[in-house]
Amino acid sequence: MIRNFNYFIPTRVVFGPGCLEQLATIAMPGKKAILVTFADLSMSRLGYVERIVGLLKKQNIDVVVFEKVLTNPLTGTVDEGVALMKQEGCDFIIALGGGSPIDTSKAMSVAAANGGRYWDYVPAGTGGRKPVEKSPLPVVAINTTAGTGSEVTPIAVITNPDTNEKVSLRIDELYPRMSFIDPELMLSLPKGLTAFQGLDAFLHAAEGYISRQSQFITDRFALEAVRLVYQNLGECVNNGKNLEARTSVALASTLAGMVIALAGCITEHSMEHPISAHFPRVPHGAGLALIFEQYFTKVVEKGTVNDRLIELAQAMGVKVEGTDEAARAMCFVRAGVEMLRACGIDRISHEAFGIENPDVDQLTEDTFGYSSGNFVRDPYELTRDDVREIFTKSLLEAK
Amino acid sequence: MIRNFNYFIPTRVVFGPGCLEQLATIAMPGKKAILVTFADLSMSRLGYVERIVGLLKKQNIDVVVFEKVLTNPLTGTVDEGVALMKQEGCDFIIALGGGSPIDTSKAMSVAAANGGRYWDYVPAGTGGRKPVEKSPLPVVAINTTAGTGSEVTPIAVITNPDTNEKVSLRIDELYPRMSFIDPELMLSLPKGLTAFQGLDAFLHAAEGYISRQSQFITDRFALEAVRLVYQNLGECVNNGKNLEARTSVALASTLAGMVIALAGCITEHSMEHPISAHFPRVPHGAGLALIFEQYFTKVVEKGTVNDRLIELAQAMGVKVEGTDEAARAMCFVRAGVEMLRACGIDRISHEAFGIENPDVDQLTEDTFGYSSGNFVRDPYELTRDDVREIFTKSLLEAK
Repeated sequence: MIRNFNYFIPTRVVFGPGCLEQLATIAMPGKKAILVTFADLSMSRLGYVERIVGLLKKQNIDVVVFEKVLTNPLTGTVDEGVALMKQEGCDFIIALGGGSPIDTSKAMSVAAANGGRYWDYVPAGTGGRKPVEKSPLPVVAINTTAGTGSEVTPIAVITNPDTNEKVSLRIDELYPRMSFIDPELMLSLPKGLTAFQGLDAFLHAAEGYISRQSQFITDRFALEAVRLVYQNLGECVNNGKNLEARTSVALASTLAGMVIALAGCITEHSMEHPISAHFPRVPHGAGLALIFEQYFTKVVEKGTVNDRLIELAQAMGVKVEGTDEAARAMCFVRAGVEMLRACGIDRISHEAFGIENPDVDQLTEDTFGYSSGNFVRDPYELTRDDVREIFTKSLLEAK
Repeated sequence: MIRNFNYFIPTRVVFGPGCLEQLATIAMPGKKAILVTFADLSMSRLGYVERIVGLLKKQNIDVVVFEKVLTNPLTGTVDEGVALMKQEGCDFIIALGGGSPIDTSKAMSVAAANGGRYWDYVPAGTGGRKPVEKSPLPVVAINTTAGTGSEVTPIAVITNPDTNEKVSLRIDELYPRMSFIDPELMLSLPKGLTAFQGLDAFLHAAEGYISRQSQFITDRFALEAVRLVYQNLGECVNNGKNLEARTSVALASTLAGMVIALAGCITEHSMEHPISAHFPRVPHGAGLALIFEQYFTKVVEKGTVNDRLIELAQAMGVKVEGTDEAARAMCFVRAGVEMLRACGIDRISHEAFGIENPDVDQLTEDTFGYSSGNFVRDPYELTRDDVREIFTKSLLEAK
């Protein structure tokens, strides 16, 4: 029986190699934009900033450039951006980059429309919990990475460095108005980032497929996304200029973004956040790579969703064989590990990423503490002992 | 290689048996609604009108009932509805029924927001071609049939009875804000309507899959939709109370609506419109049933999309066999005919539907005249001789 669902992805998705050119012709949701991008000036250096300004000039749209976003975007940067857009009279926001500029732009869209500082509207921790009464300003996302899916989600994750909080705001009005996914902009992504982000996309899809909130349409997207990543990520990592492989992974990432927007993630993502919080040099995707094998081996052991794992493996084109269901479900886990190996991220060097003396008890507490939001979506009960065991095997024994 | 695409389906889809109850809790886009439904009072008789009014009362939303819509919705009815909603101070529109009330509501949303009569904004024929400058009022669709897909498209088709014109308006702002697809409301649909509408949904999906504007996401939706209709429509027709079968076809219809919203139909739909225009007692689905076999046999003969027809057949679960590609593609055509037979619409009685002395030359002229909009999407060249031959074999020889 098909389960009941609510489907809502209002973002206009413009997809494909060269699609950025449509910035010159597709109607924009304003007259003057603030362009929000990375502080490391990488987007200027690659020529993307200048190109975008030029394309928008063709439809008489002025652009103010704001190159201040860090990898973990900060609430102070959001407020600084809002001040600049008010000063310059900007009426919409263009995000250029990956999840960080897109999330910063979403947060700016809230504060710019409703006044005050962004943290006033954050719904948890020391956040002000003010309701977002006025419609956030429109955000146009231009994706240059393939992983976060933020270009099609209504979620902004912003960090308050004074309190060490990293909090999500999720409201339907945060879906970008429009997102450009042009794989040509991804051809120069470095190997490591390509691999880590691709794994993030793969796991958005796989976790959303297992989630208790999975639904008919997101299931279709999830099965396509795992297939596209599994069959193309190794090529993207090892031959970054392959446009066809980049296009496949870019599409997978956007489909997987739609999956998490509606079906959400499970506790694998909950367990990763404490890792990258404790060891800030660990990228999100590296944290996921660290726990992937042990987490899913535990899921197979639980046994409640082995049918779903088998379906994922089949969609990936993996040969599924074994005498019982658990053995067949393990084909998904082994294929995932094989993909990590093909991408060179099956063994994350503790030294290279600054992982020292991991405290598995603290990581476990954090998983069940501030990072526990995904437990409601697990279709099995993951206990403290399970979580501690996964951390131990992933971070101590596997070293 | 994955083709470039633009994806945009901003409607919130609320799907599943019993989902209508959510009318009491999901935030509505206004305070006072006009409920637009059929003139035959069928929706009142089934108790749906009273139920909806009661559910909305729980969130203090008043409803004015407007039961005036005919099967082929008229521009005068649109204007009458707008006058009533202005008089009553309604700020949004609820459509209850199938494509006719939904299209009437979309047309009302344009005229109510922009002033004047609806025909002023119609972009063809004797329409006034005025631009739609102000955002149309929000429309909430409540589907009670499974076929048109109008609940997820930005298209309104309205007839001007003074000039005998049936013209589409397509603007992005016409996507319903929200659509409720509750298969429980479809359990009492009569056999004939069930079959004809189900075939319409099947062909929206199949035609969109063949269309030159097909895209990655709509392809997934199309393959699911043809499978769901093929495997369930016969059961819906012959055992209308089967909720599981109704749910499958309802989902197929909505998925197929998304397909036509983005990929569009091909000339099979162009050829049907003149049939039901010349013989007004022929429902759209019956016209499609009449030409299905000959149209797709011609497509196989053209040979340019036999791979796509084979993929459709495989998605439907049909055994595809044959010595060459054309023979394998014909498995799709034969499976379709078999589905028509299972639904009792493989032989449309000319007498019962008032088809007398069909003028195939005139039908051909009309196909290449006012009904020619879909030719650009055909991935083959259908000539006047081809069209005349399909009409002749379908309407004269097959009788």
